[in-house]
Amino acid sequence: MPRHPQLNANGDLRHLLTIEGLPRDLIHRILDTAESFLGVSEREFKKVPLLRGKSVFNLFFENSTRTRTTFEIAASRLSADVINLNVSTSSTQKGESLLDTIDNLAAMQADMFVVRHGQSGAPFLIAQHVGPDVHVINAGDGRHAHPTQGLLDMYTIRHFKKDFTRLRVAIVGDVLHSRVARSDIHALTTLGVPEIRVIAPNTLMPGGLEQLGVTPYTDLRAGLRDVDVVITLRLQNERMRGALLPSAQEYFKHYGLTEDKLALAAPDAIVMHPGPMNRGIEIESAVADGPQAVILHQVRFGIAVRMAVMSILAAN
Amino acid sequence: MPRHPQLNANGDLRHLLTIEGLPRDLIHRILDTAESFLGVSEREFKKVPLLRGKSVFNLFFENSTRTRTTFEIAASRLSADVINLNVSTSSTQKGESLLDTIDNLAAMQADMFVVRHGQSGAPFLIAQHVGPDVHVINAGDGRHAHPTQGLLDMYTIRHFKKDFTRLRVAIVGDVLHSRVARSDIHALTTLGVPEIRVIAPNTLMPGGLEQLGVTPYTDLRAGLRDVDVVITLRLQNERMRGALLPSAQEYFKHYGLTEDKLALAAPDAIVMHPGPMNRGIEIESAVADGPQAVILHQVRFGIAVRMAVMSILAAN
Amino acid sequence: MPRHPQLNANGDLRHLLTIEGLPRDLIHRILDTAESFLGVSEREFKKVPLLRGKSVFNLFFENSTRTRTTFEIAASRLSADVINLNVSTSSTQKGESLLDTIDNLAAMQADMFVVRHGQSGAPFLIAQHVGPDVHVINAGDGRHAHPTQGLLDMYTIRHFKKDFTRLRVAIVGDVLHSRVARSDIHALTTLGVPEIRVIAPNTLMPGGLEQLGVTPYTDLRAGLRDVDVVITLRLQNERMRGALLPSAQEYFKHYGLTEDKLALAAPDAIVMHPGPMNRGIEIESAVADGPQAVILHQVRFGIAVRMAVMSILAAN
Repeated sequence: MPRHPQLNANGDLRHLLTIEGLPRDLIHRILDTAESFLGVSEREFKKVPLLRGKSVFNLFFENSTRTRTTFEIAASRLSADVINLNVSTSSTQKGESLLDTIDNLAAMQADMFVVRHGQSGAPFLIAQHVGPDVHVINAGDGRHAHPTQGLLDMYTIRHFKKDFTRLRVAIVGDVLHSRVARSDIHALTTLGVPEIRVIAPNTLMPGGLEQLGVTPYTDLRAGLRDVDVVITLRLQNERMRGALLPSAQEYFKHYGLTEDKLALAAPDAIVMHPGPMNRGIEIESAVADGPQAVILHQVRFGIAVRMAVMSILAAN
Repeated sequence: MPRHPQLNANGDLRHLLTIEGLPRDLIHRILDTAESFLGVSEREFKKVPLLRGKSVFNLFFENSTRTRTTFEIAASRLSADVINLNVSTSSTQKGESLLDTIDNLAAMQADMFVVRHGQSGAPFLIAQHVGPDVHVINAGDGRHAHPTQGLLDMYTIRHFKKDFTRLRVAIVGDVLHSRVARSDIHALTTLGVPEIRVIAPNTLMPGGLEQLGVTPYTDLRAGLRDVDVVITLRLQNERMRGALLPSAQEYFKHYGLTEDKLALAAPDAIVMHPGPMNRGIEIESAVADGPQAVILHQVRFGIAVRMAVMSILAAN
Repeated sequence: MPRHPQLNANGDLRHLLTIEGLPRDLIHRILDTAESFLGVSEREFKKVPLLRGKSVFNLFFENSTRTRTTFEIAASRLSADVINLNVSTSSTQKGESLLDTIDNLAAMQADMFVVRHGQSGAPFLIAQHVGPDVHVINAGDGRHAHPTQGLLDMYTIRHFKKDFTRLRVAIVGDVLHSRVARSDIHALTTLGVPEIRVIAPNTLMPGGLEQLGVTPYTDLRAGLRDVDVVITLRLQNERMRGALLPSAQEYFKHYGLTEDKLALAAPDAIVMHPGPMNRGIEIESAVADGPQAVILHQVRFGIAVRMAVMSILAAN
């Protein structure tokens, strides 16, 4: 039995489902491969033939044009054929089960499924179900994991900070509902970051952080002090109207990242955000557009990281 | 004048609109061509350049992600450019007529239209209207025909049973509203199947079956006895709520294919379904996932059959 | 500073935002380039590799399947990778700003944005914002401009009438709300058409026509007399129900182009329409399908014109 559902008996990546349990050297290998692809996107002719003749299915059970687009571009630049399936409006409406849908698409000789699903664990279920020639990439499942976002965040941190083993990283915002935060915490831990902080109001603070080696802060100023990396999270609209928060204005007052608060961090701290941003809610425009923000670099690195994951899976 | 709107003066296929009237040898030629494409989908590099530089328009006036996807994959594996048009949300909403839409797309130098339409006959109307260089494939029109489904069903039967001329085939379910059933009956008749049975409650039994050489059964057990092929049909959700059926539970009790009922068929009988399945309504999971089910083979063969139809049309 | 936001310091086209201010020789160069592409769409193998490896984003903030399709086909025939983004259902819903969306897509190494937006000026905002390697094409912004439609209309007129400097051109219909009319008037003026007429009811007649050198007519018969070109405009459904018009029937009676009214124009006058047509409202079927209509030629030329614009932008 392999030690992990996403690794085969040799420890090679067969699926990318979660960063939890991924060995450190495998993460670095993905980031190194991404680095080699970064040039591909920037040159005049942007394509490499690594996935030529392969069929990649973007299976989005939860709508996300932005994330779907990044995978579509990554697959296209690897010369794959990409099929976009917005499944919420499709067979599942007709009462077909998830695994019947998967079986059907697999019978069409799919090589890779990129899956986003509202329910945690759905990509695992799919990965356990498909045959040996099909690879699954988790593009976000419920509150559970968003491993390519985690990997591109690590790429970004490595690019700007080089050494993970001396960093203080703060994750700010709605950590409770955030699959990005969960994937980032696992990645940062594996890569040897000695101090990971989570900054959130009590109502959005998950339990069990201490077991993960993470320090919780409810005070933004205290949490930001001397950090090298600030990862701000998107506040979902539904939270702003819900019982968990008094109002968006109140949230910004206490947890919005402003220039004066950012001044408490290390002078060369970088500011990250997974997008799309709510300016004036979790982040002030002066910060989002300021010299410390690396948010658009994250997007650029994200294409290269997704190309890396796809090409590594296709090669295994 | 050609003998049939979809054949040219030489008897070659110009459009694929219906199986009714297709000569037996032409059907076999399509299935033989499909057989040669089956290997294409299974090898490492899945593409052939037969439609390179051609523009295939998927014109779906009725939404069907699954069927659209099969045509998109088939065209992509033939190296065509595929344009997906979900026309229900497009110009027809703006009051443009069907033929104006077709004229416009044809003026963009379309080579092939794959048409699904809620109204029976719409693909014929389009085929009569387009110029000599444009080919039309009916991807399902109203209750009338679904010829590629019929052809892939024949491919499946030929694959597993070899000889059509000694078979008993039963079609079970909502035959009244089923374009699949209609296309299957025409194909089975042309290919020389001596005994075709239709099994349905009275309210879902079409008239005029005897003229087609088909025997109606209202009793599932009686109808299944000694058959070699069972084609189960999808029960549309709207029927379950309608006046035609008491309830889904009642339907399953009398017409759902279960293991014990299937035991009445020949021991090596195969079970087919056009998908998507309603498990527990028209088919029991034990049957759908059992050793006699060839439902996923149908899907796999379906890509090859669609590639065959497209390549034959493009060559004529 | 360049004389015009869409031209660079050398006077080359960097973006296509509006026809207003485009030099006459540049318009003719686009039309000449389109002429060379017309053959591409008509031959067996329809593709040229001019945009191979480039990423073209169809950014439609306002839904228009037809226009989006023409750009998708044009880009595909130039061998670009095309990403379709129906942005109304995407990030902007999540509260992200237009320019954040653009920044994100640009960070994915987009080469070209084809933008349709309900608000006049949006493509200008985007063009001012993007970096030097990104090109923007306005595919229709509010009531302001639709330059590729204007250019294809000019291609059509040049094709059939050769010399612009002796023409009488009438634009009929809802000129007030029409970005097509605005783009056509600028193009016709630049190309030296001596007599441009606008025919519309008072409620749909824009002000300031005389400054543009355009003669307003409220009487269709008077306005059509001896014209060489009739451009009929689509009447939007919402106008028919609104306060601006009594009814569709009334509109047709006074402003619908019928055979007997067309007889007042020059005997070899051509009839154009940007589509989709409302038959029996702004145009009678006998005219739409008659010998003087060149409406489908417009569509065919439109692909070539869009290929021309894209290839000229990519080369600059």
